[in-house]
Amino acid sequence: MNPFRHGFRVPFDELDPAGVLFFGHLFRHAHHAYEAFVAEIGWPLSRLLEEGPALPLARAEADFLAPLGLDDRVEVEVVPEAVGKHSFTLAYRFLGEDGRLCARARTVHVAYSPDEARSVPLPAGLREALVRASSA
Amino acid sequence: MNPFRHGFRVPFDELDPAGVLFFGHLFRHAHHAYEAFVAEIGWPLSRLLEEGPALPLARAEADFLAPLGLDDRVEVEVVPEAVGKHSFTLAYRFLGEDGRLCARARTVHVAYSPDEARSVPLPAGLREALVRASSA
Amino acid sequence: MNPFRHGFRVPFDELDPAGVLFFGHLFRHAHHAYEAFVAEIGWPLSRLLEEGPALPLARAEADFLAPLGLDDRVEVEVVPEAVGKHSFTLAYRFLGEDGRLCARARTVHVAYSPDEARSVPLPAGLREALVRASSA
Amino acid sequence: MNPFRHGFRVPFDELDPAGVLFFGHLFRHAHHAYEAFVAEIGWPLSRLLEEGPALPLARAEADFLAPLGLDDRVEVEVVPEAVGKHSFTLAYRFLGEDGRLCARARTVHVAYSPDEARSVPLPAGLREALVRASSA
Repeated sequence: MNPFRHGFRVPFDELDPAGVLFFGHLFRHAHHAYEAFVAEIGWPLSRLLEEGPALPLARAEADFLAPLGLDDRVEVEVVPEAVGKHSFTLAYRFLGEDGRLCARARTVHVAYSPDEARSVPLPAGLREALVRASSA
Repeated sequence: MNPFRHGFRVPFDELDPAGVLFFGHLFRHAHHAYEAFVAEIGWPLSRLLEEGPALPLARAEADFLAPLGLDDRVEVEVVPEAVGKHSFTLAYRFLGEDGRLCARARTVHVAYSPDEARSVPLPAGLREALVRASSA
Repeated sequence: MNPFRHGFRVPFDELDPAGVLFFGHLFRHAHHAYEAFVAEIGWPLSRLLEEGPALPLARAEADFLAPLGLDDRVEVEVVPEAVGKHSFTLAYRFLGEDGRLCARARTVHVAYSPDEARSVPLPAGLREALVRASSA
Repeated sequence: MNPFRHGFRVPFDELDPAGVLFFGHLFRHAHHAYEAFVAEIGWPLSRLLEEGPALPLARAEADFLAPLGLDDRVEVEVVPEAVGKHSFTLAYRFLGEDGRLCARARTVHVAYSPDEARSVPLPAGLREALVRASSA
């Protein structure tokens, strides 16, 4: 099976004076791809916001390999890289129009209960869905 | 008395490829000035978020008179322009480093009760503070 | 003919603590719709950035009629409302999933030559394309 | 000597529905601190944009240790962590109001010549200023 993909277009307001995507916006696009990914595996953010747990990011990182410019169509591949008891890691690959790898990113999400103010186990169903997607 | 003023600096990530502030960010800076202004008159957003009512925007507008560039220091004057029973209007003037008027903006805020799903009267104390500031 | 339409989804990072779209982001979405619209009529921003003239905004305004929430699918209608010699005005209607009008916006763009530091006539071809779209 | 510090306040529009700073904005604040830092050591971004070289980010990473909320005053410490021939790494520590470490970040900047489409040596003066600051 192929990894999950989410597409976006680089808009004018995300360009810097050099005419290329400001690095910080890549993390927003990674999050958009994450939102589409968890919806795809049956755990849309709206559900998580209602039922909990919260899944705040504990870590985010990105490598910028090639600049992205106005109107570039980008495909973001999302793959679970590690699924633990209380947290999981997603890996992202940003592919430009010619399929070239333009950036890589990684986010670490921790299941967290605001009421208990501590990390909690991931829901079993979410954990299973992530594991299934990681071997996709 | 002088109108309330809030300062900011134009950062790199808010510039467009022409090297000038993307228009949409001016509304964010107007909101930052609004946050500083309501705190100054004793009604910080944190208090409104806790006690209510919510004050969502019903309208926003801006005229862009001169471009703003990297590192420009801008002063935003905030003056209540109209204070009604359920809503109020704030007027903003964006002054560049030489005191030149670079932009004007206006926001209309409506007191709203999410529980009742309708507009509600402004708290009397907030209304009075806005009227006082409007004649400042 | 039907007005031009551009769709978007409300992402998590554009929500405020009340769970609704922060007003300032609506102007970014209006600009995204503008970018799609000028591309549709043969004048993509990339062409304007290369050939000129610049089309900076002289004015922007919006009325917020109903809140937008996470994952809401929004359609933005774009119609030229006025086409002058040096400037044009676009009107936007933001339609929610049930077709309900959630917001209206308007932007005024002025043809500008940075070299000459003054407004210049719109390119004839762009003017004609805008007039055609306004009667669509 | 003490590390360079840059302060900011968490504004309303950067909060997510949980009422805490959306992670992506931390990278923007790191960049603001970077802008203030290079200005402090005599190499403001405006100078780099004019004289070159460009200093695009090759990598960015952050660890989020504690949530930041509305109106939180944050101090960002900036320290050069590594200064190479063609690149340098900055380390950031985000300190909350009580001095608590709320986040860490790191950015890697590469001197790049768009004309030659390749990395180039850092200007000697910038390199020296970075080395001086790293032992501050």
